[in-house]
Amino acid sequence: MEKPMTAPIEFWFDFSSAYAYFASHEIEALAARHGRQVIWRPYMLGVAFKATGMRGLSGTPLKGDYARNDWRRISRETGIPFTLPPGHPIVALPASRAFYWIEARDPAAAVAFARDAFHAYYVEQADMTDPAVVAGVAARRGLDAEEVLAGMADPAIKEKVKAISEEGVARGVFGSPFVLVDGEPFWGWDRLAMVDRWLARGGW
Amino acid sequence: MEKPMTAPIEFWFDFSSAYAYFASHEIEALAARHGRQVIWRPYMLGVAFKATGMRGLSGTPLKGDYARNDWRRISRETGIPFTLPPGHPIVALPASRAFYWIEARDPAAAVAFARDAFHAYYVEQADMTDPAVVAGVAARRGLDAEEVLAGMADPAIKEKVKAISEEGVARGVFGSPFVLVDGEPFWGWDRLAMVDRWLARGGW
Repeated sequence: MEKPMTAPIEFWFDFSSAYAYFASHEIEALAARHGRQVIWRPYMLGVAFKATGMRGLSGTPLKGDYARNDWRRISRETGIPFTLPPGHPIVALPASRAFYWIEARDPAAAVAFARDAFHAYYVEQADMTDPAVVAGVAARRGLDAEEVLAGMADPAIKEKVKAISEEGVARGVFGSPFVLVDGEPFWGWDRLAMVDRWLARGGW
Repeated sequence: MEKPMTAPIEFWFDFSSAYAYFASHEIEALAARHGRQVIWRPYMLGVAFKATGMRGLSGTPLKGDYARNDWRRISRETGIPFTLPPGHPIVALPASRAFYWIEARDPAAAVAFARDAFHAYYVEQADMTDPAVVAGVAARRGLDAEEVLAGMADPAIKEKVKAISEEGVARGVFGSPFVLVDGEPFWGWDRLAMVDRWLARGGW
């Protein structure tokens, strides 16, 4: 790789993804251990599904049951709180739009919002399909809910989420979470340990 | 769980699965660390695909490219030799049939054959779609190739592989490798570390 070994790692995810939620609790500490920063990249996993023909695990026979048990198991093992939201999985477009609207103004606030959004959905069972609820989550960090709501409806922001999702797919991103380290792809919560070893070794 | 904690763990896999190949190098040592034995259960992943609507990763856009890179990476990290066979993925029915024919006569020999079959395919690039080649692999351990070949064609053995595959799916097995520990399911090579922790903890 030509990039310096201090390039940020990219954390791609869909806000509706439980495995991404668990990874969101670990990714910053993992990167920090290796002197890296993290670029958070929410995207629409549905765009990747169109490219791959894959579909969401919750609706897949056997796999859906497996995943629901697995999430409880991960929660118990890691201590990360988790309750399956009643309507899971939801479409996470409002949160993604809010994220990029906030990020354009304050990248650190966008990351804080992303954590809050995951928490609101997976711990508080908030209805994240409702833009007003999402704007309310943003307001917890002092943002103006009305401004965020208006931002989410901005055609440029809608286009941004679509373009980011297509960029991810063009770069080989097809799951959630999905980590890129100097271009090297790692798919899944269960690969964070491999990312850690990769960073420790400095690549191949 | 009502079962004694000394029950064997079940190692379900499809002989064409690269992730299962890597797991086959680790599963016995993992089980032995916890005083467990391993029951090897080759099955036809295609039967699970029919139940889930999933399909093989090699033919899935983006995911196939990811997996091919991932296998090289796992090989490099673990030191387990791996060369992608030219016609991958193949149908692994002949090896599964040979396995169960051997197992009915000598379970330990069946496990040795399973290792040899993985090695023949992923290291020697043997054509494991050819029953004669598979019987030749069995002959390495002193089995009579002609007998194995006749056994693979036995309708009872054909039915056995089908029945085992259906049994796996009925018990929630849908991937490869797939480990059952006292009924608890773990999917994927990348979950062996979790199986290890699970066994160390003694369950939930």
